[in-house]
Amino acid sequence: MTAPSAVKAALTTQSIETPSWAYGNSGTRFKVFAQQGVPRSPQEKLDDAAQVHRHTGVAPVVALHIPWDRVDDYAALADYAKERGLRLGAINSNVFQDDDYKLGSVCSPDPAVRRKALGHLLECVDIMDATGSRDLKLWFADGTNYPGQDDIRSRQDRLAEALTAVYERLGEDQRMLLEYKFFEPAFYTTDVPDWGTAYAHCLKLGPKAQVVVDTGHHAPGTNIEFIVALLLREGKLGGFDFNSRFYADDDLMVGAADPFQLFRIMYEVVRGEGLSSEVAFMLDQCHNIEPKIPAIIRSVMNVQEATAKALLVDRDALAAAQAACDVLGANAVLMDAFNTDVRPLLADVREEAGLDPDPIAAYHRSGWAQRIIDDRKGGQQAGWGA
Amino acid sequence: MTAPSAVKAALTTQSIETPSWAYGNSGTRFKVFAQQGVPRSPQEKLDDAAQVHRHTGVAPVVALHIPWDRVDDYAALADYAKERGLRLGAINSNVFQDDDYKLGSVCSPDPAVRRKALGHLLECVDIMDATGSRDLKLWFADGTNYPGQDDIRSRQDRLAEALTAVYERLGEDQRMLLEYKFFEPAFYTTDVPDWGTAYAHCLKLGPKAQVVVDTGHHAPGTNIEFIVALLLREGKLGGFDFNSRFYADDDLMVGAADPFQLFRIMYEVVRGEGLSSEVAFMLDQCHNIEPKIPAIIRSVMNVQEATAKALLVDRDALAAAQAACDVLGANAVLMDAFNTDVRPLLADVREEAGLDPDPIAAYHRSGWAQRIIDDRKGGQQAGWGA
Amino acid sequence: MTAPSAVKAALTTQSIETPSWAYGNSGTRFKVFAQQGVPRSPQEKLDDAAQVHRHTGVAPVVALHIPWDRVDDYAALADYAKERGLRLGAINSNVFQDDDYKLGSVCSPDPAVRRKALGHLLECVDIMDATGSRDLKLWFADGTNYPGQDDIRSRQDRLAEALTAVYERLGEDQRMLLEYKFFEPAFYTTDVPDWGTAYAHCLKLGPKAQVVVDTGHHAPGTNIEFIVALLLREGKLGGFDFNSRFYADDDLMVGAADPFQLFRIMYEVVRGEGLSSEVAFMLDQCHNIEPKIPAIIRSVMNVQEATAKALLVDRDALAAAQAACDVLGANAVLMDAFNTDVRPLLADVREEAGLDPDPIAAYHRSGWAQRIIDDRKGGQQAGWGA
Amino acid sequence: MTAPSAVKAALTTQSIETPSWAYGNSGTRFKVFAQQGVPRSPQEKLDDAAQVHRHTGVAPVVALHIPWDRVDDYAALADYAKERGLRLGAINSNVFQDDDYKLGSVCSPDPAVRRKALGHLLECVDIMDATGSRDLKLWFADGTNYPGQDDIRSRQDRLAEALTAVYERLGEDQRMLLEYKFFEPAFYTTDVPDWGTAYAHCLKLGPKAQVVVDTGHHAPGTNIEFIVALLLREGKLGGFDFNSRFYADDDLMVGAADPFQLFRIMYEVVRGEGLSSEVAFMLDQCHNIEPKIPAIIRSVMNVQEATAKALLVDRDALAAAQAACDVLGANAVLMDAFNTDVRPLLADVREEAGLDPDPIAAYHRSGWAQRIIDDRKGGQQAGWGA
Repeated sequence: MTAPSAVKAALTTQSIETPSWAYGNSGTRFKVFAQQGVPRSPQEKLDDAAQVHRHTGVAPVVALHIPWDRVDDYAALADYAKERGLRLGAINSNVFQDDDYKLGSVCSPDPAVRRKALGHLLECVDIMDATGSRDLKLWFADGTNYPGQDDIRSRQDRLAEALTAVYERLGEDQRMLLEYKFFEPAFYTTDVPDWGTAYAHCLKLGPKAQVVVDTGHHAPGTNIEFIVALLLREGKLGGFDFNSRFYADDDLMVGAADPFQLFRIMYEVVRGEGLSSEVAFMLDQCHNIEPKIPAIIRSVMNVQEATAKALLVDRDALAAAQAACDVLGANAVLMDAFNTDVRPLLADVREEAGLDPDPIAAYHRSGWAQRIIDDRKGGQQAGWGA
Repeated sequence: MTAPSAVKAALTTQSIETPSWAYGNSGTRFKVFAQQGVPRSPQEKLDDAAQVHRHTGVAPVVALHIPWDRVDDYAALADYAKERGLRLGAINSNVFQDDDYKLGSVCSPDPAVRRKALGHLLECVDIMDATGSRDLKLWFADGTNYPGQDDIRSRQDRLAEALTAVYERLGEDQRMLLEYKFFEPAFYTTDVPDWGTAYAHCLKLGPKAQVVVDTGHHAPGTNIEFIVALLLREGKLGGFDFNSRFYADDDLMVGAADPFQLFRIMYEVVRGEGLSSEVAFMLDQCHNIEPKIPAIIRSVMNVQEATAKALLVDRDALAAAQAACDVLGANAVLMDAFNTDVRPLLADVREEAGLDPDPIAAYHRSGWAQRIIDDRKGGQQAGWGA
Repeated sequence: MTAPSAVKAALTTQSIETPSWAYGNSGTRFKVFAQQGVPRSPQEKLDDAAQVHRHTGVAPVVALHIPWDRVDDYAALADYAKERGLRLGAINSNVFQDDDYKLGSVCSPDPAVRRKALGHLLECVDIMDATGSRDLKLWFADGTNYPGQDDIRSRQDRLAEALTAVYERLGEDQRMLLEYKFFEPAFYTTDVPDWGTAYAHCLKLGPKAQVVVDTGHHAPGTNIEFIVALLLREGKLGGFDFNSRFYADDDLMVGAADPFQLFRIMYEVVRGEGLSSEVAFMLDQCHNIEPKIPAIIRSVMNVQEATAKALLVDRDALAAAQAACDVLGANAVLMDAFNTDVRPLLADVREEAGLDPDPIAAYHRSGWAQRIIDDRKGGQQAGWGA
Repeated sequence: MTAPSAVKAALTTQSIETPSWAYGNSGTRFKVFAQQGVPRSPQEKLDDAAQVHRHTGVAPVVALHIPWDRVDDYAALADYAKERGLRLGAINSNVFQDDDYKLGSVCSPDPAVRRKALGHLLECVDIMDATGSRDLKLWFADGTNYPGQDDIRSRQDRLAEALTAVYERLGEDQRMLLEYKFFEPAFYTTDVPDWGTAYAHCLKLGPKAQVVVDTGHHAPGTNIEFIVALLLREGKLGGFDFNSRFYADDDLMVGAADPFQLFRIMYEVVRGEGLSSEVAFMLDQCHNIEPKIPAIIRSVMNVQEATAKALLVDRDALAAAQAACDVLGANAVLMDAFNTDVRPLLADVREEAGLDPDPIAAYHRSGWAQRIIDDRKGGQQAGWGA
């Protein structure tokens, strides 16, 4: 296997972006269960994110969601982050929570709705200018519920038109990350349902348009690492929205449902030289029933562990077995890395970085959980605002 | 094919139960889009249900959901229904929308929560006594999101204990309908995930415990009509929650996604002699983006059309082809009924019953849609209350 | 709805291509059940195909599969077809049934195997020259069964190399149709698993490379008509391999499992102006348990019926309802066409063309079924040759 | 975590049954790739199985498949096994590979076919008497491909009749294991498609009828460990057919596709006290492209590793966290065991049993692979015989 020192060196370069909204309340269509100590402002979300970074050392970036994180002064918010050792990451647009968007946003049959949605997307680029964010993340809830409800092809035309307008507004170092999703909240068609659709649009737009892979947004059985390998081969992988699922877009902690799949994904990232700043490693999860901060710490650790295992793969031995048509041998090389317990190695990495080797225990000892319960009384807890 | 007169006679005996909550607002976890004219009380829901029955003639029963339809005087509510030509149907319990139910209700690891949940279920039987309802419909959102979160088997023990307590409380002519669901809102285990689990519990409880089939609650590819045939063979089919889906529990209008499947289901109902009062034909849908009353009328009509086609199947010819091992011939007999346009036949049935042959058009002409928009101002629109 | 005369006119232009191999024996991995009267040569397959065309009038083209249909003189075979009112259609390559292809063909890690596979593909273009076929259909069984078995990205490089070599060999009026498939016979990765992969390759290759949609080759829940709409919008839909499925690649008669889906697909074809010679309407089915010729006649009729319904859609009314954001109204326009019984209209079309209005009955009366049972004794029945 | 000594003690009691047919050739419907050195007789299969047991020490039982393993003298075959340190396990019936079974076996509409199939099942019990086998494993390929093809309910009646006849024939210490399968080779209905159907039949038959869980026979997303927990709670889990899958019934090496799932299944086995002789731990796999003997050794090791991890779970800590409603804590207890590298522990177990710590390496050193290639020339290689 790869030398531990090389693995450790690579691990220290990894940066994982946590989503501001994961610190707030979330739920299913049946119920949002409120938790104690949940942030009431973007600033409090950053305070919590700082705890995640403090104990893991690899989560210095925080993604925002507009309008959930709307503030008067984004530059001040960026400063607030900086003071806590953080920086602001992707700006996530939201064109799905206004009554106008009942039949879609940029794909709506109503031109006034499309204009409004486009206006919001352009506002998000303005915010990027203020926060210094590189990435605009676009997820569209657009779609239809019933056959015939709208014209599939016309909706693609409208989508292309809006994306082009946004693309043209991007600054030189800014990117547009287009997310696809198999279904939900639309139940018959979704306007960007798969990587192929996102890829086709991004290809036409140009190099600043990249595809983002949300690991929960696929049909049952889809081989996600294959998509990752393809997008890296095409130079079109902009980043990940990590989470995990057993059924649909369950938004569970990444690595919780299928740690072997996460490892295979990270292996393709390593193999495709995606362990770089070109690929954004973002979390996008809903901690509906578990405490949010330790759940995010656990998620960050899960990504780290999968990355460590991926880095441990003996690629020379693997290539040799593959070339020799040795099916069992090649599989065994991969499994050898997966079966390795990398927790001691990661404990070393943390200690070498001056961190506690056990981030979860350190967080629990820190008293932060109790402090926010005590402090954050009154006000409106952050949530999805649905 | 079967003689139209016999088909018509059978169709007039069918009674479809509409759910009070489908008249209120609903949505996905991302957004509930409010609609104009939505009811603000159980009484207003009954007013709307009366419109559905007025135009279709086959929807005289309305299911309630507790606590969404909680009133001080249930007998008075039953009278209110009766005055409008309706009667109250199944009482649907709700043990998923209280903060206490975050980790489950009757299966929760917390005994206090289990007691509270059981108390609610027993209260629902009290309400049945007052409304004269025959059926208690039990759907449990119980389950877990993460492996290890709770003990699968202990949760079954707790479930069995609660079901037994409720069963013993049932009156002589009352039934308990146990619903199963593949997933959502729990994302790792669901405590009643499939018909087998519901069947196993109902079998032990006794004849008053029956399984209810929600057509949206299955794994991808599941052959629902097979389950219907089996449950009828076992005498354990209590009823349906009709809706349709392309992906998960999409709760679209029944027959909208796969009318052929609905036909096959209704054929097994007819073949298994389930077109009787022993099987409750209930709708359970979410009209998130379409107007609710016409959507329910359409759904009722879709069930009628599928039933008409199922009744049209030439069962003698089918049996003969099956016995002769004539694969194509037997399939053709079934398809012949499905391919028949039964809308003229249903128009006849309606006219013979003194109804407009086109219920949707009649509803639109009635002015009700505008009237409720004008009248129902102020107050709190009914919704899921999540 | 659209005027019947216009519908009839459009229907007479449709041409459906039947596959030579569907006239031979097929089965599952568990058993191939032999049927009486099955062809023993490519010529006998053409004889059967001529029966399908004789009774339906819309199936004049027959696809070949090499090496299953290997003959010494392809021009003579084309003449044989011509004499029976047929012409030879797509040439289907087979790079999956030689022991050398155990780990893949053009994507194999073994360069000798890749050369052999490419040689076969180029031979198929030679055959096209001889038969006058326009289309080369490429389906690759290539993939891996185990993680690590081979390198995903390297296999894409090898695939691209082979496709480029074949593309360059194509004549001026020849096309390459690239088929994708979700899984089977490979069970971990498939080298062309989805439309996105096929599209990305075809886009780089050029205008003669087109994507073919096999309706059974998708993940559960995939919206196939959406893909059809997208590919038509991109000018990249080369054709269909029609069949139907409930679970995986079941290869049942098209329209047998979900006639509403087939209608929606054909509606997108009509809407996207794909009802032209640019799109090849091919069948690809396995009649494992039912007699082959009548099953193919039924399949041709199912495509016709779905096409007729698609043509009947009142597109002006549909567009108006869509523009008015009338969800239920737009859906109703589509459903109105689907619910129409088009069998009388198709009977008229046939009679106007001098055919029997009931092709199945006419076939049964023709005596062909008994004649081939009597005549085709001895010899080797055609099959997949696995 | 549990003390290693207790884990080791439990591991030494585990016995894994390998299937005779996995030593022969297998494939997909597209191609069976022949391998060198494949057995040509039941005796040679036992010779290979003895190698698996020799190197793993936990695979002393071999399941037979009739008629693939038909011999004149079963008692002699049992002696042959005994001389090699093996014993004969479950007798697997085969009522799917005769032309008569095209439309089913015990569920066929043809009474003569049903009689023939029942005769074969009873013959299998005769063979059990001769071999001393405890278990009759029943898998029925029965089902239909097209709606209407046969009557779902009548087929259940026929199934029940046949099962009853077989049940009555069983000796005192013999059992009937009923297998369910979601689909394939039937593509519309399968007569025993899910655990609920198998359970309902077994319950009526009596205590000697038990359900067998093939891990590849479920709908996408099905929670298999939940079914295992339920069947153990009901006293109805007869055993496993282990294999793994990404898509359908892929029959890959167990643990290859989702080692975390295998761990969760084994945890429910341990928790439900199923690690006993009452539950048969059988493999049922197809090694289409990889060498068979080392693939089976790897599979046995994978079951062992999952079992070891399941045994390592700190059940006291888990119960405490569950009772405390500590979602993350309870999950962490489970994951701690899964993340442990148990290979050193299993190496110890083997060395303490006098075995090589690395069974794969030991097998490769043994020269057996070359020996069978050299020796097994001529004759007919064993295969599925399709």
